[in-house]
Amino acid sequence: MKGPLIIIGGGEDKEGERTILREVAGRLNGGKLVIATVASHEPEGYFEAYQRAFSDLGVTDLVEIYVKDRSETLDPAKLCLFDGASGVFFSGGDQLRISSQIGDTLIEQRVRDLHMNGGVLAGTSAGASVMSETMLVKGTSGESYKIGDLHMAPGLGLVRNVIIDQHFAERGRFGRLFGAVAHNPRELGIGIDEDTALVLEDERFEVLGSGCVYVVDGAGVTHSNLAEAEPERALSIYDIRMHVLSSGDAFDLAKRRPTEVPDLKKRHAIEAQSVG
Amino acid sequence: MKGPLIIIGGGEDKEGERTILREVAGRLNGGKLVIATVASHEPEGYFEAYQRAFSDLGVTDLVEIYVKDRSETLDPAKLCLFDGASGVFFSGGDQLRISSQIGDTLIEQRVRDLHMNGGVLAGTSAGASVMSETMLVKGTSGESYKIGDLHMAPGLGLVRNVIIDQHFAERGRFGRLFGAVAHNPRELGIGIDEDTALVLEDERFEVLGSGCVYVVDGAGVTHSNLAEAEPERALSIYDIRMHVLSSGDAFDLAKRRPTEVPDLKKRHAIEAQSVG
Repeated sequence: MKGPLIIIGGGEDKEGERTILREVAGRLNGGKLVIATVASHEPEGYFEAYQRAFSDLGVTDLVEIYVKDRSETLDPAKLCLFDGASGVFFSGGDQLRISSQIGDTLIEQRVRDLHMNGGVLAGTSAGASVMSETMLVKGTSGESYKIGDLHMAPGLGLVRNVIIDQHFAERGRFGRLFGAVAHNPRELGIGIDEDTALVLEDERFEVLGSGCVYVVDGAGVTHSNLAEAEPERALSIYDIRMHVLSSGDAFDLAKRRPTEVPDLKKRHAIEAQSVG
Repeated sequence: MKGPLIIIGGGEDKEGERTILREVAGRLNGGKLVIATVASHEPEGYFEAYQRAFSDLGVTDLVEIYVKDRSETLDPAKLCLFDGASGVFFSGGDQLRISSQIGDTLIEQRVRDLHMNGGVLAGTSAGASVMSETMLVKGTSGESYKIGDLHMAPGLGLVRNVIIDQHFAERGRFGRLFGAVAHNPRELGIGIDEDTALVLEDERFEVLGSGCVYVVDGAGVTHSNLAEAEPERALSIYDIRMHVLSSGDAFDLAKRRPTEVPDLKKRHAIEAQSVG
């Protein structure tokens, strides 16, 4: 059975409560974790930061995998790093480095096998974007979408029919996610804030962390100028449905609807909080 | 009959095409314009900038009104500035300076009279926010909405049942507008980008300029945690309807729907553009 995907919007807390890393640790249950720093051009220090952050959360068996160049993906010593691993964690950087360096290689196959056999796959920032079939790259932040701004590329495709964006409210990326959804409303847009994550299992995810997860559903869109107008024109799109989710909320990707949190203990905790 | 409201998201072009200022000028039809710089703590240079920007657009009869302190609103010399005016333009700054210095004064009455008699009312940035009954002030930008972030105040109320925000995509203000709408979905949220405006007449507006206008409709919202949870919790709200509008789009505030642009010439111009 497929393992869980833990998709993080970047900037997850590494020193305090560490709600998100604690969830990753809990899912690993003492198992070995591979930290994949391949998204970064200069990965120095990334691995050590996660080593420190995880050390008192019960994750002590950590190894780093880095690939500077695609040819290294054939190196048996690199491939062996996955032996006996319970999870892989993709750190941040540039999502195109992940897809271009390990896409369609034996390393990607090891990641995929681990996931298919119940292993935990986590990714933050670029490591989150790369989870989807089509990923946003280099789109503009802090402005509305212009029709000609096409910056998408094929990701690893671990989750289908969604486009994931990260550092979402912090970097003002609403415009580019609306633009992405306008290209094909089949794709559900998912924008994840910093220090916020979704834990996806069986087409259903729950939200964790301090920020929000924005779901942009274009299924009911009645008009868009995407295919009509000049590239420098601003986007026009009517009747987007949007859900703003936060910690404790859950969402069914198949039904495209927010859903009940089945974990009653969790639910009660939230209700107790709200009474106070 | 009430005159048009021209509500601008800040940063309107003052040197190039000046699409928005050209619209203001066209509506004035050679008449006198009062530039109200009262939103600013240091208004030096604002008036001169508009004087330059409007000079070759046919608006040559401009006067500035500034009120440092509320007591000055009784000054007959200030009130006389409105004599024979065809329009008022509120420049940017702090919306609380407009509402606290001229709210419920004779100056506000002059503005209101002018509007009721068909005069043009324009406002940019803080001057846009202040148009609504309830206005956003000092809310956070570039992050998701926390339940305790209540930063609203009564505006001039020239347009009802909407909350207007400005510098919208540029400053990442989606979160705070969703938060505002969550408080009471009766209020339609309207976020206006920089160098973008809406021209409102008879409950209907058209969009002008280079960016987008975002309409956030909470009428169909099925769940919100606004009244339930702790102030530091992130917002949760399901089933927001959203429209992203750009130049050439129109919206009916009474029906809460995008609508056809009646000006056929304009419509044909857009279609001609899209064929190219």
